Amino acid sequence: MKQVIMRYCIGVILLNMLMTGPEHSGCFAQSPSKIIEDFKPSSVNQAGKEYPQVNSEGRVRTQISAPEAKKVQLDIGAVKYDLVKDENGVWTGESAPQDVGFHYYQLNIDGASVPDPGSLYFFGAGRWGSGIEIPSEDQDFFALKDVPHGELREAQYFSKSSNTIRRAYIYTPPGYDKDHSKRYPVLYLQHGMGENETGWGNQGHANFILDNLIAEGKAVPFIIVMENSSVKFDRSRTPRAEGFDFAGEFKKVLLTDLIPYVEANYRVMGDQEHRAMAGLSMGGMQTRLITLANPDVFSQVGMFSGGSISMDDVKNAPDFKKNVKLLFISYGSRELEKPRGGFGGDPKVNTEALKEAGMNTHFYVSPQTAHEWHSWRRSLYQFAQLVFKN
Amino acid sequence: MKQVIMRYCIGVILLNMLMTGPEHSGCFAQSPSKIIEDFKPSSVNQAGKEYPQVNSEGRVRTQISAPEAKKVQLDIGAVKYDLVKDENGVWTGESAPQDVGFHYYQLNIDGASVPDPGSLYFFGAGRWGSGIEIPSEDQDFFALKDVPHGELREAQYFSKSSNTIRRAYIYTPPGYDKDHSKRYPVLYLQHGMGENETGWGNQGHANFILDNLIAEGKAVPFIIVMENSSVKFDRSRTPRAEGFDFAGEFKKVLLTDLIPYVEANYRVMGDQEHRAMAGLSMGGMQTRLITLANPDVFSQVGMFSGGSISMDDVKNAPDFKKNVKLLFISYGSRELEKPRGGFGGDPKVNTEALKEAGMNTHFYVSPQTAHEWHSWRRSLYQFAQLVFKN
Repeated sequence: MKQVIMRYCIGVILLNMLMTGPEHSGCFAQSPSKIIEDFKPSSVNQAGKEYPQVNSEGRVRTQISAPEAKKVQLDIGAVKYDLVKDENGVWTGESAPQDVGFHYYQLNIDGASVPDPGSLYFFGAGRWGSGIEIPSEDQDFFALKDVPHGELREAQYFSKSSNTIRRAYIYTPPGYDKDHSKRYPVLYLQHGMGENETGWGNQGHANFILDNLIAEGKAVPFIIVMENSSVKFDRSRTPRAEGFDFAGEFKKVLLTDLIPYVEANYRVMGDQEHRAMAGLSMGGMQTRLITLANPDVFSQVGMFSGGSISMDDVKNAPDFKKNVKLLFISYGSRELEKPRGGFGGDPKVNTEALKEAGMNTHFYVSPQTAHEWHSWRRSLYQFAQLVFKN
Repeated sequence: MKQVIMRYCIGVILLNMLMTGPEHSGCFAQSPSKIIEDFKPSSVNQAGKEYPQVNSEGRVRTQISAPEAKKVQLDIGAVKYDLVKDENGVWTGESAPQDVGFHYYQLNIDGASVPDPGSLYFFGAGRWGSGIEIPSEDQDFFALKDVPHGELREAQYFSKSSNTIRRAYIYTPPGYDKDHSKRYPVLYLQHGMGENETGWGNQGHANFILDNLIAEGKAVPFIIVMENSSVKFDRSRTPRAEGFDFAGEFKKVLLTDLIPYVEANYRVMGDQEHRAMAGLSMGGMQTRLITLANPDVFSQVGMFSGGSISMDDVKNAPDFKKNVKLLFISYGSRELEKPRGGFGGDPKVNTEALKEAGMNTHFYVSPQTAHEWHSWRRSLYQFAQLVFKN
C-alpha cells in the first residue's frame, strides 16, 4: 500500500514539474520547507501549555512525548497527519491550513484516539475532547474585553416530562442584578448534534458576544437559555417518509418544563413577542419544527446551518407568517459551495421568497467558513443585532 | 531488576503461606481471581461511556482500544497498573482498591500520558484530566437531589492589582433572586495547589452540599465565592526561613479586587461578622496567612488539610483570637496516620490548645480518606453547619 502511494506521488510530482515548474511539485500534504515558522500557542490551550500551536497559514502543530509509540497522528478536519519522533521520544507534526475559527480534534497514539493533553476540552462529537482556535480577522467580536459582563449561570431544575433534574445554562445580561424592576426578552439557543448545553458558552462564547454587543449599544439586552436538546429521540419509530422528528422529546422539555421554569425564576417578559428560539445545525432543525408548530410561543426565529423555512411550510402553518416578526437563516460560505437542497429546498431561495411575501427575513452567509462554530458565532452576532427590534 | 522483584515476591508468597495458609499468599498488586466482578460505570463518566468502572472493593477498571500499542497503563494514586490487550486490540485492566471519594488519574499509552476518553475532566495537578468517583457510604450529602437549587454563576471582573480580567464562580443559594431585600453572609473558598476556581464546583460539589444542607435546615444560607488563588508567587524571592508566602499575590487580588467586586455586585452583608474564608491544602495555608493578618476582615476561618493555627500564631496576632468567632481545622484520617508536624505543629494539639484558651475551635477528621477531595467535601459539609451561627 505504501509503495502504491509512493509511486503515485512520484508520478504526481513529475507531472507537476512538467506542467508548472519545480516550485509546484508537492504531493504530500505536508512539505516542511513551505511551512511558515510563526507558530504561537493556541488561545484555547490549557494555562502554560506550549502546544498545540497555530501559524499564520492556519496550520495546527502539536507535540506530545510518547517515547515507546510507533505512530502518532493529529486527527483534525477528518484528516490524520503523521507526527515525527525526535531522539527524545517527542512527536511533533502539523496539519494542512485550517479554516478560521474553532475546530474539534484529537490525537491518535498507536491506534488509541485520545484528547491532546495540551488543549482545553469542549463537548462535541458526543464526547469531551480537544479544540483549537484558528485566529480570524473578526475574532474581536467574541473576545473577553473590559466591558460590563453578564453572568453565565448553571442552574438545575426538575423536568416533569423527563422525570429528571436537568441542567441549563442561563446568560443574564450586565446589570441584571442591579435593577430588579426591569424585565428582559429571552432567547432559547440550541447546540448541534453531538453537542450539549455547554457549547454556546464554551466554544460559542455567546456570553462575550452579547456582552460586547450590549456595550456597543448594538443589541437589546436579553437573556439566553441554553439547554441540552439531545433528548432521546427514537429514530426507529419515525417513518423515514415523515422525516426524522428531531424535536420530539426536546419539544416537551422545552414547552412544558424549561419555559415555565425560566419564566418563574428569571425576570423575562414572558410573552410571545419577547420570546425567541434559535439553534445551529440540529438545533436549527429543532427550531424550525418547534417554531412552525408553535408560532403563538415564539416571535423571533434563527436557524444557523440548519435548514430554512419554505413557502410550502408557511402555507401549512399560516400563523407562522403572521406571528413571526423575525426569521434569520444563515450558513457558512463553504456549506453553500455546492447547491444546497434537502431540508425543504435552497435556503437562500426560500428565505428570499418569504421576504417577497412580506416576512421580515434575513439571509446571512459567514465568509470562508464551513459547518463549524465560527459560522455560528458570526450568525449569533448578526442575529443578536436584529432580534427583539421589531 | 525484574528478577529481584520476582525473587522477593516468591519469598513473600512462601512466607505468607507458612504464616497464614495459601489464601493469603498474594504479592502482586493484582490477582485477577480475587477481583470481585461487580464493576459499574463510574458516576463521573462521560454520558454513555461504559468505562472506566468501579467495583465494590473500590478497584478502578478501565478499557481503551489501542491496537498498535505495546504497553498501556492506568496511572492512579501514584501507581501504574498494566492493562492487558485482547485479540481486538482493546486493553483492559484494574487498579488496587482505592479510598472512597474522588481521585485524579490518567492513562499511559506507549509512554504518552493522556486523559482517559471515558471520563469527565477535572482541573487538578496543573492540568485538565480524568477523574473517578469511588462510591462512599455518605455520598448522599453531595448528591444532586430534587431540592431547591442555588446557582453556580461564572462571572468576569476586572482586577486592578493584576491588571487582568479574572474569572470567579459564585454560588448563590436557593431563592437568592426571589427576595431582593435579603442579604447573605459570604464564604471565600479556595482550592489546592495545581487546582483552580472550577474545583469546588466540579469535583467538590460545593453547590450541592449547600443546596442539601439548606434544604434540611442545617446551614444558614450563604454565598460562596470561588476564585483562582494560584496567582503567580515567586518562590525564589522568599527566603526559606520565612516560609513560602503562598498568600502573596492572591492576598492582593482577594482584598483589593475580589471582595470589593462581590460586595458591589451581590447582596452580601459585607461586614467582618458575615465574612468567612476557608480552603483546602494550599488554600488552607493561604487562609491561615490571610486571616491571621486580617482578623478585621474575616470572622470565620476553615482550613482543610492545610495546617492549623497555634498558640504562638495568636500571640503574634492577638486580634485573631479576639475577632475570629469560628476556627475549623480538618484532615483526612490517612493524613494523620503518622504524627503530623510542620506548618506550625500538630493540628489537633494546636486546635485543642486554642479551645482551652477560649476560642470556638473545631477539629474534624474525615474517616478513611487521605489528602483528597472526599476529605474536603466532608470538611465543607461540617464547616457549613457551623459557620455564621456564632
